[in-house]
Amino acid sequence: MMRLKLTVEYDGTDFYGFQRQPGLRTVDQVLEKAIQDLTGETVKVTGAGRTDAGVHALGQVVAFDSLSTIPAAKFARALNTFLPQDIHAIDSVQVEPDFHPSYSARSKTYRYMIYRSYEGYTMVRRYAHLYTGALNLEMMKAAASIMTGEHDFRSFMAQGSAVRQTVRNIMGFEVMEDYPWLRLEVTGTGFLYHMVRNMAGTLLEIGRGAMSVATLRSALETGDRSLVGPTAPARGLCLIQVHY
Amino acid sequence: MMRLKLTVEYDGTDFYGFQRQPGLRTVDQVLEKAIQDLTGETVKVTGAGRTDAGVHALGQVVAFDSLSTIPAAKFARALNTFLPQDIHAIDSVQVEPDFHPSYSARSKTYRYMIYRSYEGYTMVRRYAHLYTGALNLEMMKAAASIMTGEHDFRSFMAQGSAVRQTVRNIMGFEVMEDYPWLRLEVTGTGFLYHMVRNMAGTLLEIGRGAMSVATLRSALETGDRSLVGPTAPARGLCLIQVHY
Repeated sequence: MMRLKLTVEYDGTDFYGFQRQPGLRTVDQVLEKAIQDLTGETVKVTGAGRTDAGVHALGQVVAFDSLSTIPAAKFARALNTFLPQDIHAIDSVQVEPDFHPSYSARSKTYRYMIYRSYEGYTMVRRYAHLYTGALNLEMMKAAASIMTGEHDFRSFMAQGSAVRQTVRNIMGFEVMEDYPWLRLEVTGTGFLYHMVRNMAGTLLEIGRGAMSVATLRSALETGDRSLVGPTAPARGLCLIQVHY
Repeated sequence: MMRLKLTVEYDGTDFYGFQRQPGLRTVDQVLEKAIQDLTGETVKVTGAGRTDAGVHALGQVVAFDSLSTIPAAKFARALNTFLPQDIHAIDSVQVEPDFHPSYSARSKTYRYMIYRSYEGYTMVRRYAHLYTGALNLEMMKAAASIMTGEHDFRSFMAQGSAVRQTVRNIMGFEVMEDYPWLRLEVTGTGFLYHMVRNMAGTLLEIGRGAMSVATLRSALETGDRSLVGPTAPARGLCLIQVHY
């Protein structure tokens, strides 16, 4: 028995998220099916981040146990033969039996892509949120810097989440300009449900002048969900890398 | 009656090309339907380039006559309300009654996109041809430069084309490196059927060392189709701009 760590990328547009839901096309189900086609084994994969429907990944990490004799380093390439076009295994490596893609992770990096022009959006519409209004980038950078560090992010969590421990440490949050692109890149020890999309929505509200930096401070201090911006659309979000 | 010139972009993946074919989703049919939804008129649009199935456009130009009272400059925006996500009108302007998108054009620019890494290809697979082998870029640049100028390109034309005049003038052909991207950008007075895809296929053959620059010279001199490389896949091709 070996434990395999698989790094995968996928275009989330046509997936109903990472986690299995009866009758729907999900990332874990498509991976498990391909592993079965390749090895004959019925496995259960665990992922580092349970991306929502429409959310993409360039560096999702999954792990599973296998009795297969395929050399670990060649597993990714062999698996790709059985995967559809919108998901691809980049790398495979054998790991310790207790490796867990999420619990073993030190941090994760997500990128939120905003496209600021009608021209060319047709080609990037699957991977970017269209926003053509004026944005005060300096304000957005200031807000990203306020969110950096250890904070109680419960106001940035989707309503109805059952998580109790809502303190997270954001190690870096960059606002990168490359017109017509605006990229938000955030690295943290962990993220609450919808947290990155709510952070992106909040930065956009601040950028367009509909929300102040003082309100952001107050959302972090009071945990008041109503102070935070709307959840930005899934299509702009991508899980870039999981750090171990 | 006014004649309208419309600049449109589209993701060609889910279109069976530009030109109407019974029962299939084509660019002209989708545009004509949207114009009818907007104005109530039944029009026939003419395009600058009849892109094949799977070929994209960032600057396709179409023209048609309309009795609509919508101001020309606002037509594009109004039309977008009736267009699906994979096609978008960028600009609309009134032109002379004798304007023809193709015959009035001085030249056209096409771009062929090659992606040289398995990593990240999932996200760009609709718009790029995957080629991960070694390529001699200096050789490719030399070959592109040989194709520049006025030549008889009949060896680069799809078999079965009925066109008699096969001399075309290539004003510029650049090979641009930005790993993992390799972009081929060609501007010419006109292009024969499959000509750009055959040029791209030929450059790839030369880049990987399967064809010599001398063979390319001989293809241009003799018109022998068998000397030219294979037709590169449609997905990598995009009509960038039509110059008037």
